[in-house]
Amino acid sequence: MSFEQINSVGNLRHLITLDGLPRSQLELILERARRYLTPVGSPPPRADTLRGQTVANLFFEASTRTRASFELAAKRLSADVLNLDVNMSSRAKGEGVIDTIFTLEAMQVDIFVVRDAGPGVPARIARQVEPHVCVLNAGEADLSHPTQGLLDLMTIMLHKGDPAKLTVAIVGDIRHSRVARSAWQALGTYEVGEFRLVGPAELLPEDDEFPGAARTTDLAEGIADADVVMALRLQKERFAQLSEIPDPQEYFRRYGLTEARLGAAKADAIVMHPGPMNRGVEIASAVADGSRSVIREQVTNGLAVRMAVLEIVHDHVRRARGEHP
Amino acid sequence: MSFEQINSVGNLRHLITLDGLPRSQLELILERARRYLTPVGSPPPRADTLRGQTVANLFFEASTRTRASFELAAKRLSADVLNLDVNMSSRAKGEGVIDTIFTLEAMQVDIFVVRDAGPGVPARIARQVEPHVCVLNAGEADLSHPTQGLLDLMTIMLHKGDPAKLTVAIVGDIRHSRVARSAWQALGTYEVGEFRLVGPAELLPEDDEFPGAARTTDLAEGIADADVVMALRLQKERFAQLSEIPDPQEYFRRYGLTEARLGAAKADAIVMHPGPMNRGVEIASAVADGSRSVIREQVTNGLAVRMAVLEIVHDHVRRARGEHP
Amino acid sequence: MSFEQINSVGNLRHLITLDGLPRSQLELILERARRYLTPVGSPPPRADTLRGQTVANLFFEASTRTRASFELAAKRLSADVLNLDVNMSSRAKGEGVIDTIFTLEAMQVDIFVVRDAGPGVPARIARQVEPHVCVLNAGEADLSHPTQGLLDLMTIMLHKGDPAKLTVAIVGDIRHSRVARSAWQALGTYEVGEFRLVGPAELLPEDDEFPGAARTTDLAEGIADADVVMALRLQKERFAQLSEIPDPQEYFRRYGLTEARLGAAKADAIVMHPGPMNRGVEIASAVADGSRSVIREQVTNGLAVRMAVLEIVHDHVRRARGEHP
Repeated sequence: MSFEQINSVGNLRHLITLDGLPRSQLELILERARRYLTPVGSPPPRADTLRGQTVANLFFEASTRTRASFELAAKRLSADVLNLDVNMSSRAKGEGVIDTIFTLEAMQVDIFVVRDAGPGVPARIARQVEPHVCVLNAGEADLSHPTQGLLDLMTIMLHKGDPAKLTVAIVGDIRHSRVARSAWQALGTYEVGEFRLVGPAELLPEDDEFPGAARTTDLAEGIADADVVMALRLQKERFAQLSEIPDPQEYFRRYGLTEARLGAAKADAIVMHPGPMNRGVEIASAVADGSRSVIREQVTNGLAVRMAVLEIVHDHVRRARGEHP
Repeated sequence: MSFEQINSVGNLRHLITLDGLPRSQLELILERARRYLTPVGSPPPRADTLRGQTVANLFFEASTRTRASFELAAKRLSADVLNLDVNMSSRAKGEGVIDTIFTLEAMQVDIFVVRDAGPGVPARIARQVEPHVCVLNAGEADLSHPTQGLLDLMTIMLHKGDPAKLTVAIVGDIRHSRVARSAWQALGTYEVGEFRLVGPAELLPEDDEFPGAARTTDLAEGIADADVVMALRLQKERFAQLSEIPDPQEYFRRYGLTEARLGAAKADAIVMHPGPMNRGVEIASAVADGSRSVIREQVTNGLAVRMAVLEIVHDHVRRARGEHP
Repeated sequence: MSFEQINSVGNLRHLITLDGLPRSQLELILERARRYLTPVGSPPPRADTLRGQTVANLFFEASTRTRASFELAAKRLSADVLNLDVNMSSRAKGEGVIDTIFTLEAMQVDIFVVRDAGPGVPARIARQVEPHVCVLNAGEADLSHPTQGLLDLMTIMLHKGDPAKLTVAIVGDIRHSRVARSAWQALGTYEVGEFRLVGPAELLPEDDEFPGAARTTDLAEGIADADVVMALRLQKERFAQLSEIPDPQEYFRRYGLTEARLGAAKADAIVMHPGPMNRGVEIASAVADGSRSVIREQVTNGLAVRMAVLEIVHDHVRRARGEHP
C-alpha cells in the first residue's frame, strides 16, 4: 500500500485493513468504543462530535445490516449522512469510482465509508483523496472487514479477557471470509493463544494464509476446549464446490453448532456469528438464542466500534483543517 | 394474539390492529393528534419528544406515501430514522425477519414501523421483541392498516362529529381492502350509526365479516343520505375477476363517484379516498378536487396521527427503561 | 408558462428555467451563494435557515450527483429531507405526478426539487401547487438545468470576471444538452462577449436555437483564444447517430480536450465539465486533473448555489405564511 492508515502524529486516518495496525491503535479504538456501550433498552448512545460534518456511505455492494450500523453510528454522532447505493459494473467502476469520490470531496464530504464486493477499491480511494479526507472499509471482497474484526475482538475481550490466554475456533467457510481474515488479524495483534480453522477441506484457506493457525476438518476436534467458537455464514452457492457436502442438511450434520456438540468446548465458551445467520445450517436456533450466544452483543459492539472509529478519524479531519481536536 | 397492544399500566405499546382496541385508547391518540394539526401553509408541526431515539421503517412492501408519512412523523419528533426497504421472498422472510429485528434491536432501535403485503408479520414481530420495544403496523395484507383507520376516524369526526349519528358508505373493493377493515374497526368502536358496503358482488367481503353492516351492489342505494362516502382504490388486476365489469370505464359508470351521483348523499356529505386515486375510475376529478372532498385533509391528519402514535408508544419505551414519561 | 417564477414582491419563488429570469435575480443568487463558499477541507457551510422545514427531492430520473448536492444543500440548512426516487412510466406519471404533489403538500412539504427525463413536469407542478409552495428544477429533459447554469456562471465569474468580456466555447453534444441551454441562458443574461458552439454537425442544435452564437465543427477554430472551454458529457448511444464519428476513440481524436489542443485557447483559459466525465472521450485526464481545470470547483459552487436558491425561495414560503422573512 502506498497510503498510510496512521497519520504523521500517530493517529488513525484510514481504516482499510487490520493487517499491520499496531495494537496501540486497536486499544484506542476499543477504549473509545466502550464509552459508547449502553445496555440495549437504554437510550442509544449519542454525542455531538460530528455535528455539521458529512459522512458518505458509498456502498457498491448492498448490505442492510452494515449500512444501518454505519448510518446509525454517524447519526448518533450528529453527522449528516449521505447514503449512496451505487450499482456499477466493474468496468464502469474502474472508470467512475475516483471521479465520484472527487465529486463528493468537492461537496465537502470528509469521511467515506466504502463497501465493495471486489478487492482494492477502499485502498485505491485512500491513495487518491485529499490529505484531510478519511476512508473506512465496510467490507471488501474476501479480504477485509476491519470494523467487524474489531467488534469481534471487543466482544471476545469483554467476555473472556486477554486473547493471549484463549483458544478461538472459527468454523465454516474460512476461505471466502473477510470476517475470518479480519478476526485473525485483530486477534493475532493481541497474540491470541490458539487459533483454529475448522471446516470442509475445500473451505479452508490456502496454506500460506493464517500462518500458525491450526487446521482441521473435524468439528469436535476443532472446538475441543475452545473458549470462543465463531460460526461463519455459508453462501448457498458453495455447495456446488463441496465434494462431500451436497446440501445444507449435511453441512449442519457435520459443522452445525448444536448444544450437544458444544459440549466439547469449554463450559463457559461463547458462541459468535457475524450474521445474517442461516439457522439450521451453520448454527442451531437453540444455540443462536441460547445462553452461550453473544451474537446480539456483537451487533451492539459493532455500532459502538463504528462510532469510535468515526470519531477517531474525525480527529484527523479536524487536525488537517487546522482545528485543534 | 399472544401479545398485548396495551401494556401493564394501560398505555398503548404496539399498534397492530384496531380490532379490540378500547375507545379510550383511540380517544387518547386522536386528542394527541389534534395537537399536531397545523394548517397546510404554516410551518410543519414539530417537537423534541423523540430526540436521540431511533425509528426503523421496515418496509417489505413498497410504499411511497405511507413511508413518507411515517418518515416525516418521526423526523418532526426529532427522531433518527432508518429506512429499510427490504425485498425478501416469502421464504427468506420466514427465515430472516426475526433475525433482522433482533439485529436492529441490538442497534438500539426501539420503535419499528412495519409494512408487508402478507399477513402476520407485524404481530409475529410484536410477539418476539424485547419488553421495551414497540411495533407499529403500517399496512398488512388485506387485513389491517390501523393508522389509516385512525386518520379516517379523525377526519370524519373533525367534519361530522359523533360517528354514532352518521351514515358511512364505503364504495369499491372492500373484499381486498385493509383500509375498509381498519375504518370499520375504528368506526365500530365509536358505534357508528350506519355502515354500508357498496360495490360489485365479487368485491364485497365474506358474509361473516363486517357484521351488522348493510351491503348493496347499487351505488345510488348505498350512498343515499350518507354523511360520509369513502371510495377505495381499485387494483387494475381485479377486472379479470369481475363478471359484469370488464374495464375501468364500466367501473366508473357504475361505481365512480361523480357530482351527479353524490346528489343522493346528504347535501353536506364529505368524500374520502385513501389514495393513490385512480381518477376517472373510482372518482371523478371534479369530486376529488371539489368542495366535498377531504382527501388532502386525510393525508394531513394521517401525519398527525402517526406523530401521536409514535409519541404514545415512546412513553412505553421510556417507562420500560425506567425513565419517567 | 402560466406561472411566474418571481412573486408579487419581486422575489424568486420557483426556479424552472433561467430563460427570461432577470439579471438582478441571478445576482442575488450568486451573492448569496458566495456566502456558502468555504474552502474544501474546511467544515462544510451550515445555517439554521430551514430548520423544521421539509424539502422533498422528487427524482423521476435517477441521479447520484445532483441528488446528493440538493440533499446536502438542504441538510446543511437544517431542513428535513425526504428523498423520493420515483420510477413511473410516462403514462403513470401523467396520471400520478400531481396527486403525488398534492399528497406531499398535505404533509406540509413546502419545497419540491424535481428531476425528470421528459419535458414539462417541473412547470406543470409549479402551475398547480398552493401559493406558498416552491418548485426547483433539478434537470429536465434536454431543456433546462438552471442550478447547473448558475453554478457554471458563478464558476466563470469567480475566475474570469465579467462575462461580457469573455469568449466561452462549449464543446460536444450541445443538441441534447440541458447543461448547454442553461449555461447559454445564464451567460446570455450577463451579455457574454462571444459564445461558441463546437461539435459534430449532428450534435449542434437547430438553427433557431442559441441565436447569435457562433457554430463550428472544428475544435481548433472553436476554442481559439477562448477564455472558457466547457466540455459536455457524451452519451455512448449517440455514436449510432454520428456519420463521421464511429467510436469514442475517434471522438477523442477530433473533440477531446487535450493539453496540446488547449494551446489554441487563451493561456489562462479555464476548462469546465458538468460531470460525470468520460475521461479519454470528452477530455484527457491530464486536462481534467490539470491546473486549468475548475471541474471540482463547479461541484463546490453547485452546492453553494443550491443552498442559496433553497434559502431564497424559502423567503417566499415564509412570506406566504405571513411570517416576516
